[in-house]
Amino acid sequence: MTRQNEGRFKILLGYDGTRTAKEALNVALFHARHFHAEVDVAWSLAGGQATSQEEIDVAQDGLQHVESLFREAQIPCQVHLLIRGLSPGEDLVRFAQEHGVGEIVIGVRRRSQVGKLIFGSTARYVILNAPCPVVSVK
Amino acid sequence: MTRQNEGRFKILLGYDGTRTAKEALNVALFHARHFHAEVDVAWSLAGGQATSQEEIDVAQDGLQHVESLFREAQIPCQVHLLIRGLSPGEDLVRFAQEHGVGEIVIGVRRRSQVGKLIFGSTARYVILNAPCPVVSVK
Repeated sequence: MTRQNEGRFKILLGYDGTRTAKEALNVALFHARHFHAEVDVAWSLAGGQATSQEEIDVAQDGLQHVESLFREAQIPCQVHLLIRGLSPGEDLVRFAQEHGVGEIVIGVRRRSQVGKLIFGSTARYVILNAPCPVVSVK
Repeated sequence: MTRQNEGRFKILLGYDGTRTAKEALNVALFHARHFHAEVDVAWSLAGGQATSQEEIDVAQDGLQHVESLFREAQIPCQVHLLIRGLSPGEDLVRFAQEHGVGEIVIGVRRRSQVGKLIFGSTARYVILNAPCPVVSVK
């Protein structure tokens, strides 16, 4: 998890183990390879009573797996379990602001309620508030 | 406007001459350079009574300018004025489907009504319906 090459372009991948997050992971790998970038992977949990120990264990295992995928691809990577009482969108935007991130990659779930497409609140928040371009992956 | 290297990764840039579209243009240039990609630039107008000759002239001039920027950067580029009665979002998604586009880059305007951030309908439509990742730029 040692940070290499401080001057590299930084990609932030929002990851939560879902199918769309795995699609986003593939896009982050592709971008990191071509931009010669380093990747931060963030899994956000609310914490407190809203978060069980099991959720924390699942997140830690998931992040470890993602880290191994980037290591195999020889892409510098740091993983972060963010438990600080923020929503996932707030966590990603704040992390990007604090770490000079050049691009955020997120999975976007399309949910159907009475046949209608709904745009997820996390994606909307990140796109409207991020300090950098946001790549949405379905 | 000749298409070079049919097998290249294709980026579609939605462009309408606004400030955020120019930011999106810069991101498309950056991505095209690193992905060794070719770029299609699409300007969408509704057509019919909703579209004046002046709007068409402005779009053609704008596209010519964008084409010259990509030519200077030595990135293969084709520009397209789409006037086929579709909304900008529908035009971009359909173009991406028809041309095997690997990534769409769009500018996202944040509009404030009574202090509230509003997510543009074009961006929402494109992100939910695109056959590929979508890069949102502010």
